[in-house]
Amino acid sequence: MNPELIDSLIVKNDTKIVFLIMDGLGGLPNAETGLTELEAARTPNLDCLAKRFTCGLLDPIGYGITPGSGPAHLALFGYDPVKNNIGRGMLEAAGIDFPMIENDLMIRVNFATMDKEGLIVDRRAGRIDTETNQRICKKLQDHIQLSADVKIFVKPVKEHRALLVVRGKNLRDELQETDPQKTGISACPPKALIPEAKATEEILADLLERAGRLLADEEKANTLLLRGYAKYRRFPRMEERFGLKALAIAGYPMYRGVARLLGMTIGGSVTTPEDIISVLRQQYAAFDFFFIHIKQTDSRGEDGLFSEKVKVIEQVDAVIPHILELKPDVLAVTGDHSTPAAMAAHSWHPVPIVLAANTCIPDRVARFGERDCLHGGLGRMPMMHLMGVALAHARRLGKFGA
Amino acid sequence: MNPELIDSLIVKNDTKIVFLIMDGLGGLPNAETGLTELEAARTPNLDCLAKRFTCGLLDPIGYGITPGSGPAHLALFGYDPVKNNIGRGMLEAAGIDFPMIENDLMIRVNFATMDKEGLIVDRRAGRIDTETNQRICKKLQDHIQLSADVKIFVKPVKEHRALLVVRGKNLRDELQETDPQKTGISACPPKALIPEAKATEEILADLLERAGRLLADEEKANTLLLRGYAKYRRFPRMEERFGLKALAIAGYPMYRGVARLLGMTIGGSVTTPEDIISVLRQQYAAFDFFFIHIKQTDSRGEDGLFSEKVKVIEQVDAVIPHILELKPDVLAVTGDHSTPAAMAAHSWHPVPIVLAANTCIPDRVARFGERDCLHGGLGRMPMMHLMGVALAHARRLGKFGA
Repeated sequence: MNPELIDSLIVKNDTKIVFLIMDGLGGLPNAETGLTELEAARTPNLDCLAKRFTCGLLDPIGYGITPGSGPAHLALFGYDPVKNNIGRGMLEAAGIDFPMIENDLMIRVNFATMDKEGLIVDRRAGRIDTETNQRICKKLQDHIQLSADVKIFVKPVKEHRALLVVRGKNLRDELQETDPQKTGISACPPKALIPEAKATEEILADLLERAGRLLADEEKANTLLLRGYAKYRRFPRMEERFGLKALAIAGYPMYRGVARLLGMTIGGSVTTPEDIISVLRQQYAAFDFFFIHIKQTDSRGEDGLFSEKVKVIEQVDAVIPHILELKPDVLAVTGDHSTPAAMAAHSWHPVPIVLAANTCIPDRVARFGERDCLHGGLGRMPMMHLMGVALAHARRLGKFGA
Repeated sequence: MNPELIDSLIVKNDTKIVFLIMDGLGGLPNAETGLTELEAARTPNLDCLAKRFTCGLLDPIGYGITPGSGPAHLALFGYDPVKNNIGRGMLEAAGIDFPMIENDLMIRVNFATMDKEGLIVDRRAGRIDTETNQRICKKLQDHIQLSADVKIFVKPVKEHRALLVVRGKNLRDELQETDPQKTGISACPPKALIPEAKATEEILADLLERAGRLLADEEKANTLLLRGYAKYRRFPRMEERFGLKALAIAGYPMYRGVARLLGMTIGGSVTTPEDIISVLRQQYAAFDFFFIHIKQTDSRGEDGLFSEKVKVIEQVDAVIPHILELKPDVLAVTGDHSTPAAMAAHSWHPVPIVLAANTCIPDRVARFGERDCLHGGLGRMPMMHLMGVALAHARRLGKFGA
């Protein structure tokens, strides 16, 4: 089933939907206890939801596929993550909240070190600090002027990483990346891969030449490598597709960026449970859909810190009663993907979900955990269909056919 | 999800994957005991795997679809079995290990009996024995010479069945089958169904005429009927798609044939557990992926021999510790389809699987059987996605998106 099938079934309603997303929620058993992070956590409120309502497991992309955060969030919001795969440059731009417009070409930049023969000796310029990065980006921004029709934006990201946005007409992203992927050889030229990209190739070659001259006296970051070319792509907004006025409460830029691409309003960059609840309370009347993003479950998982991830889950559990006080018509608590501490990385495993609504199909799950969710009333389903299920429970979907 | 999505995510690793396939593994309850073949079998080693790792059920093709062995094996190896449906002629050629090349036209042949009026009186030539078949094939092979550009190969299969391969240029398979499907009427001409197949029609008509003259004095097999035309089709190799050097250990030609089509190396035609383990040990260092095929589960099922099928499963169970000694990173034990002794035929029922890897999502299954696998951590999934899951557990798949 195409997740866009629901778009034509949308009906108006004033119900409220809350998605509480613990990034990287899913885990794997601890070698000693045999329990996953979620199973080990004391979660009386989530368990109560599991008991009263319905559970399941969500596959973010597909069997065996480990998702990046971009595609996983698109799936959560009802967008086919494969058909809507965001180019890396665009995700980088979203990640720093860069205000992209139609036709922009976004490019990831790695500052790098080149020797006198022009060979790349360090593809990350010794991981220069972010301050140096900021200084160099400013230098490039201030001193490079291309033709009258073409504007560029050079924005620092972190350490050796930056964002280059080229704004102009007829730009294309079918170009060879210049990162040679190993050291001891020259950077590649930004060669057009199709004839239509020739003009863009020339713009970038010009830009690289000017940048090379400007950076010649830098100790480490004396050149730049271009990767992840991505033309701006407009995603249909959640309001257009689902009639939902959506608010994002997310502390990290990348998630705010993805939310903005889907037309969500950004409701403050907050991270503590108190602040999240406070923003939710303040904005509750003005929106239909609320995306609350908790980053720390993923960060602790990526750091391999099992007990720390357990603690974050317990902190989030404590927030649940405050959300329930607002009486949302649908509350979904889940993750965007799994990040087992045992793997210290994102993984392909399906993600537990508990969905609370008055119209839930009953199951016998009494606790919120991976093993329990296997037997949940939602079964195991592709993540991109969660939005349809949420809209149905919110009585925002009409009948298909007569 | 398209199973080819994983192809772009492949990363190098030196992990090992073993697929132990019991052909026709799935069964149905015995009328007396209420237990299936697998449930009735004493399988301490498989049960131990089920307890420690994860179980599930695989749908070979789709709901209600009973697979042939060709499509079922394609699904096991990560090929969409519907999109990659092998033409019957090609499957027949694979079945006898015929070395097909690009542009070959493969055709199934039934030897048949024709009366003096030219009407088909027996579509199977009284099921002549295989020796007669061999003699007749040799006669045709030795005495038929077509034009200089066209070579033919006539290979006996079994009883009244043979394989005809036409090797030449611009051959097409869009032709009418000549088997009239009933007796008392003439064979059909091999009529071109599209103009481009006209030249092939002429080649086959010429061939049939010469064959008719050569066979005129045969008592039973005095004519041939042509079916299942299939142009050779190249399948992307497992090494191209997944970066896997694959070894097939299979005692039956047809499975070796399918394995060869996917680029697997054929590791000896062995059938006894000792020989299988011996080949596996010898070749273990040289390959990444091992396909072990056990035919007898299916044969006993097709013969309706419940207890005999149980015995074969128990023999395979005894092999498990020897495989585990090699410490594969991923071991999947499953079937290609179900062959319940109660039906004495292939069936559409999903097939139990146990998958052993260090990164398995936990479940509560403690025994390897159809009913137990229903509650497994893999859930119920399309068979064609097993390869993606196996590659993920073998840490041979990178992240999708950023």
